[in-house]
Amino acid sequence: MAGGGDELKLLGMWASPFVLQVKLALSFKGLSYEYVEEDLRNKSGLLLSSNPVHKKVPVLIHNGKPVCEPQVIVQYLDEVYSATGPSFLPVDPYERAMARFWASFIDEKILAAWTQGSRGKTEEDKAEGKKQWSVAVETLEGALRDCGKGKPFFGGDSVGYVDVVLGGLLGWVHANEEAFGIRSLDPQRTPLLVAWSERFGALETVEPLMPDVSRLVDLGKMVLAREAAAAAGASN
Amino acid sequence: MAGGGDELKLLGMWASPFVLQVKLALSFKGLSYEYVEEDLRNKSGLLLSSNPVHKKVPVLIHNGKPVCEPQVIVQYLDEVYSATGPSFLPVDPYERAMARFWASFIDEKILAAWTQGSRGKTEEDKAEGKKQWSVAVETLEGALRDCGKGKPFFGGDSVGYVDVVLGGLLGWVHANEEAFGIRSLDPQRTPLLVAWSERFGALETVEPLMPDVSRLVDLGKMVLAREAAAAAGASN
Repeated sequence: MAGGGDELKLLGMWASPFVLQVKLALSFKGLSYEYVEEDLRNKSGLLLSSNPVHKKVPVLIHNGKPVCEPQVIVQYLDEVYSATGPSFLPVDPYERAMARFWASFIDEKILAAWTQGSRGKTEEDKAEGKKQWSVAVETLEGALRDCGKGKPFFGGDSVGYVDVVLGGLLGWVHANEEAFGIRSLDPQRTPLLVAWSERFGALETVEPLMPDVSRLVDLGKMVLAREAAAAAGASN
Repeated sequence: MAGGGDELKLLGMWASPFVLQVKLALSFKGLSYEYVEEDLRNKSGLLLSSNPVHKKVPVLIHNGKPVCEPQVIVQYLDEVYSATGPSFLPVDPYERAMARFWASFIDEKILAAWTQGSRGKTEEDKAEGKKQWSVAVETLEGALRDCGKGKPFFGGDSVGYVDVVLGGLLGWVHANEEAFGIRSLDPQRTPLLVAWSERFGALETVEPLMPDVSRLVDLGKMVLAREAAAAAGASN
């Protein structure tokens, strides 16, 4: 299936953690692909026709057929290219269920807390988001301790599904620390996650894919300023 | 794997659409299981220890090992009992991706719109929820038309993953129509979904599992009254 006739195209946006999840999956599988950067304020016809339901990146187009939603794409790549690179999902059904559980936890709890902590509407809202981030991150620390059993990755000795999903967030974790003073990962409270983030970020496959933190900070500040201006305009 | 030594226990709550998804999956697979009704205002020690992260139903306990989150459970059952009953997910990776995409759409868009439409904080909020429900349901109608290719179910000739996920909502779809005047499925605008809901609801496996609509209506009204009283108390 991973033959030379395969054509893979990824529609993305450089700062998106969801696009990074797919980039990571493609690179771990050793697949070459064409990358198309989208301007999200002026979306291409290809993006709109490939993902008419959500109109969002990432979209993976495989031999002309679009696949949308990051976790769906990562599982698709794992199944189509099962003989190529590492298997993201384990073979055992119970372990697969655990991996899907934690991937969904990252998408629902970690990302929601992070958004609220950095972009909440009021200071109380932001404080509540930061609190929820701490709780969620400590829960994930427990998962790494209990499920990882001393292995270097959520996937065990090599990276797996949860590593890929969590890895997509790493750029913004660092940017948040720098720009918004959110201490994303505390070495005292989440030592395993701190070690994981350093180990994962330093992988030969991962390092070149990580977005530039200062560019992320600039983008984050610009988005916040734009939102503040829109809110001020709305209240005038 | 589906041998006589297997012990399956489901922690549930009769009115939960998510629990119904799992009940449907278990029944389509022809599996017998012990059902434990939870009082969500006084959760059991077993629920809290089996799902310490979310503390929610459904939880499936399989030979003592808990699996949480409805879509994770349905996929787990499909994988463990692959030789039993219908396969919920198709064999082809692209079709599997499509099924996962639509299941996630139902969870994210349809359920969010439905909650907002029936439990929104203001009348405008509810009206917006009902509008979004219409849009989402029409999108799903398109999926049934394009992907179903005239077949009776999302899964084709037999029920599949999307049927199970959507089927969990059927009781509340009918209750919403009765209690809140939300015309959930319009025969003019979504004729295929209307036909699907009648066909699915009449299946021998499905009918006995469907919650009693008048009990759902009573519960819905009670929850709304409780929320209104709490809101009035908070503003006094």
